[in-house]
Amino acid sequence: MKIRQLFDYDTWTYTYLIWDEATKEAAIIDTVIEQVERDLQLVTELGLTVKYLLETHVHADHITGAGSLRKKTGAQIVIHKNSNSPCADILTSENDVLTLGKQEIRILHTPGHTDNDSTYLIEGAAFTGDALLIRDCGRTDFQLGSNEALYHSITQKLFTLPNNTLVFPGHDYKGFNQSTIAEEKAFNTRIGAGKSLDEFSILMDNLNLPNPKRIHIAVPSNLKCGNV
Amino acid sequence: MKIRQLFDYDTWTYTYLIWDEATKEAAIIDTVIEQVERDLQLVTELGLTVKYLLETHVHADHITGAGSLRKKTGAQIVIHKNSNSPCADILTSENDVLTLGKQEIRILHTPGHTDNDSTYLIEGAAFTGDALLIRDCGRTDFQLGSNEALYHSITQKLFTLPNNTLVFPGHDYKGFNQSTIAEEKAFNTRIGAGKSLDEFSILMDNLNLPNPKRIHIAVPSNLKCGNV
Repeated sequence: MKIRQLFDYDTWTYTYLIWDEATKEAAIIDTVIEQVERDLQLVTELGLTVKYLLETHVHADHITGAGSLRKKTGAQIVIHKNSNSPCADILTSENDVLTLGKQEIRILHTPGHTDNDSTYLIEGAAFTGDALLIRDCGRTDFQLGSNEALYHSITQKLFTLPNNTLVFPGHDYKGFNQSTIAEEKAFNTRIGAGKSLDEFSILMDNLNLPNPKRIHIAVPSNLKCGNV
Repeated sequence: MKIRQLFDYDTWTYTYLIWDEATKEAAIIDTVIEQVERDLQLVTELGLTVKYLLETHVHADHITGAGSLRKKTGAQIVIHKNSNSPCADILTSENDVLTLGKQEIRILHTPGHTDNDSTYLIEGAAFTGDALLIRDCGRTDFQLGSNEALYHSITQKLFTLPNNTLVFPGHDYKGFNQSTIAEEKAFNTRIGAGKSLDEFSILMDNLNLPNPKRIHIAVPSNLKCGNV
């Protein structure tokens, strides 16, 4: 599987274009509406057919480009069933499998940042959305987030993946672009090095983060796949 | 060879940490002074020994972290001999080879953005600095830049590398993080698709770009390896 990471400078969002080189079937994970033309041009230049638009969750910090890209490519929008998204084409559950050519995309339900987080597992790489970030993790204080759920998702699901699994997050705010499960188990500042649920919860409950600027626009828009 | 791409948000600069997994010998390409602590922490967490601090050229848009990192790691600072850098440890020429464990780093002199640009070739990847960017290339209007030299560097040296060679640039301003030689030969907007030197020169001579904000600080500072 080929992977191309893309960055939206305004919202610090990573988008991922992945494709099977043999069949040129592609998926795009977590698109951003302002970057749709860029993404379409890249897909065209690489000669790819976009089959899936994979959302890791209903985002609160940017508006998805999925609706717009579906119109222009015919791809199917995929998101976890807990989102109750009325516009998605495929609502997923734990361990569902999608395919690009002979390559498999396996879905883990990794809630805690929201109730509808998915991690997409593809050939030794985990696209973790806002569940597991690099040395960090998603906040748990809105959108049905839960310290207990996120702790369980990360320690019982993601940290049990092979150590050399690459971690590709939904955002990074320090300029890291990838990590590994081994690194996060050892060095994640919020949940690594064997932190207990109590330690994790105290830390998460004291973050005192402001709401994302666009949350009141982004969440309803994303439940409509970007209003397209 | 393992590759980790790092990003400096303020100057849109890509830094690359590369290492030989067997010996843990590492090099860092194009560091940024504000990110030295981040880079050191990552190196420590990964258990690496930094052997080289590779500069693709004397930068005009940010101050290198090389001097500071040399102090803290004992690594050698490497740059092309045309820089006449009085603080570097190794001044390179075309086809020089450095090693990390059994892995080779081959140096191509790819001038045109400046007179001292190097591309570092490592196991199917080209770290092209500001010579070849993604769908773009470095400007040629200061620091002894030259349309003719850059055209020659890109078309005669970089475009003759194997098509599947990965291209890792020094900057990107649209959120791309990597490309391939095949893509740039086909789609580079300034020099791809068989553009002639005349076409390229007309385009480059009409960019009318403002000088980088920090050029008067950055260039003299970088000739002192970041004043450290």
